[in-house]
Amino acid sequence: MADAQVPETHVLAIASHVTSGYVGNTMATFCMQTLGCEVSAIHTVNYSNHVAYRRVRGRKTPAAEITDLYAGLKSARLNDFDMLLSGYCPSAEVVEAVGHIARELRLASTLKPGSFFWVLDPVMGDNGRIYVAEECVPVYRSLLKDADLILPNQFEAELLSGVNINDMATMRQAIATLHQVHRTPHVLITSIRLPATTSNTPSAAEEDLATSAKLSVVGSTATSDMKPRLFRITVTALPIFFSGTGDMFASLMSGRLRQAAASAGLLTTKSWQSPDDVLPQDLPLARAAEKVLASMHAVLKDTATHYNAVVEEWTEAHSNGKAGDDEVDERHLRYTRAAEVRVVRNAGPLREPPDVEDFKAVSLNVGWEGAETTEEV
Amino acid sequence: MADAQVPETHVLAIASHVTSGYVGNTMATFCMQTLGCEVSAIHTVNYSNHVAYRRVRGRKTPAAEITDLYAGLKSARLNDFDMLLSGYCPSAEVVEAVGHIARELRLASTLKPGSFFWVLDPVMGDNGRIYVAEECVPVYRSLLKDADLILPNQFEAELLSGVNINDMATMRQAIATLHQVHRTPHVLITSIRLPATTSNTPSAAEEDLATSAKLSVVGSTATSDMKPRLFRITVTALPIFFSGTGDMFASLMSGRLRQAAASAGLLTTKSWQSPDDVLPQDLPLARAAEKVLASMHAVLKDTATHYNAVVEEWTEAHSNGKAGDDEVDERHLRYTRAAEVRVVRNAGPLREPPDVEDFKAVSLNVGWEGAETTEEV
Repeated sequence: MADAQVPETHVLAIASHVTSGYVGNTMATFCMQTLGCEVSAIHTVNYSNHVAYRRVRGRKTPAAEITDLYAGLKSARLNDFDMLLSGYCPSAEVVEAVGHIARELRLASTLKPGSFFWVLDPVMGDNGRIYVAEECVPVYRSLLKDADLILPNQFEAELLSGVNINDMATMRQAIATLHQVHRTPHVLITSIRLPATTSNTPSAAEEDLATSAKLSVVGSTATSDMKPRLFRITVTALPIFFSGTGDMFASLMSGRLRQAAASAGLLTTKSWQSPDDVLPQDLPLARAAEKVLASMHAVLKDTATHYNAVVEEWTEAHSNGKAGDDEVDERHLRYTRAAEVRVVRNAGPLREPPDVEDFKAVSLNVGWEGAETTEEV
Repeated sequence: MADAQVPETHVLAIASHVTSGYVGNTMATFCMQTLGCEVSAIHTVNYSNHVAYRRVRGRKTPAAEITDLYAGLKSARLNDFDMLLSGYCPSAEVVEAVGHIARELRLASTLKPGSFFWVLDPVMGDNGRIYVAEECVPVYRSLLKDADLILPNQFEAELLSGVNINDMATMRQAIATLHQVHRTPHVLITSIRLPATTSNTPSAAEEDLATSAKLSVVGSTATSDMKPRLFRITVTALPIFFSGTGDMFASLMSGRLRQAAASAGLLTTKSWQSPDDVLPQDLPLARAAEKVLASMHAVLKDTATHYNAVVEEWTEAHSNGKAGDDEVDERHLRYTRAAEVRVVRNAGPLREPPDVEDFKAVSLNVGWEGAETTEEV
């Protein structure tokens, strides 16, 4: 039961809302509430469903409305948040509005270090493609110095740091840039697939990292002089595209990081930054990521079982002849829905992550003074 | 654990959203998800907080946007709902839009009786005061024939039935009218406080009903000839005003009623209506209400403890001199927030209602043929 609830935590969550399915705030609110957090949600869009269905209805929230909702909270004295989790913003103006809110909350916490923590998920694109307005990129870059933890995927980390990531050395360089140039104390890069062939310093560890059925998460909490303290967790990837896993990861990380920081006695330390003698694999950030990945693996495995049953059922019912366009479309809708992450029926594994020992963080700080070399060979 | 999860249930929830606090969909979504339901939420407003704070920012959703979101669900084949729970609508046009959606879902279920169930919470007012546009009243009245269960409070039951409720006889008459004239098979009237003095057939049972520290819920599932089968559950009222308890009741009832109907083998029966030989106190509606009131009592008791601690703290800190207007306002905001129902930290009692035996439904069908007379004397 120790894992079940995080300390009382009031989170402002700014992201998208969908009526059906689980992405953005719809995913994040449930995940954080299941961990026991109070979640105040401002929706950056109100859509019928997520875009993987290839059709969507609804409305983007103008930046002025987001600012207005926050002003309402302030006027009713409801803005004493412990954390801000910000995700998808439909325009650069909305990114700016979120930045203003974050800076105001940061300013209000000046005299109480650690009393406000911003988890920024810089949702911009994936796999080499930007899917928001290009103007968002420089705005996100300008906000990095105010964020405590950022959760870019590999492509977003490249956009923010300006470093092309194609091996562990460039990964390290990108994270060092985010710490040192952009002053972000915690960085966690998700969904990493490094091509083994382009690696200029191949090693057994890196080949393992690049195997297609494996995904890595690489994280770091900077030392007091903003040097990276790198760790990695490798997980088995499921061969199905799930929407909302980024939001699931970010929201569970928010709750678990606060829990781990509380255990480490860091909640009154600026940015919950660990003392310099804490090893990469012992960071609260690593501890939190282990639990989150264990929870996610259990939930996604159950979702995959459900998905495969739907695929099998469909295939059996449509085994005759070539499918027409309509049938292909129907199948796409059915499969997309079957891939909705089954969080609601899996609150148990969210609260109590199973098999956490299979998701051990490993230090990547080869040769870094003060840290053991624990990288696998 | 038998109580923990309801059968897999997909609910369309149409009600208000607030960023901070728990009313409308913000309350209902969490409660139903905690019971294991898939909830698809369409928000009729997006507000910063509920109105008890006496200041609110945000936007009402135009009826056309609600219709559009539903069209989006339909186009992506995401509208095969088992249930609809509808709550606060900011205008008569929105009530009408919800009615269209409900009728369409009803029509689609014609060949599969029991496959769609509409829980209609006709939010119009309380304690003799209408707090929505007057035009909503006739629209709600016109929708009653399409609803399966309605959850009016005493005042709303009067508005809908046209019967003034001031004793058990008129209560019975109001419910009979809703069954027979308006064709609603299940009726549950919440928050009943009958004045003992105006009762024209005083009895020990009715005096008990009228004690100020007690609240009653009176429910009925009509027989096949639309006669009432009345039961009552009396609960101890807490002397604090909590917002969102109506939404909490409606959402928990939705999940628990489906669970009770499944146990009774009624999910393929039109409106989950029990056979005529089922006694009032044995109705799935009664079974569900017992669990819901047990859960709510536990959660509200915990909220009251928290509230009282806040009041005590405030009183100690402000014991000197007369409070100015600003201080009175600050106190109001603090107390209102302290009265936010603590659902998130009380998911346990929502999933597993404690002391259900203290919330036993009692038959009110005095002298009704076929039912035992079990009313207390």
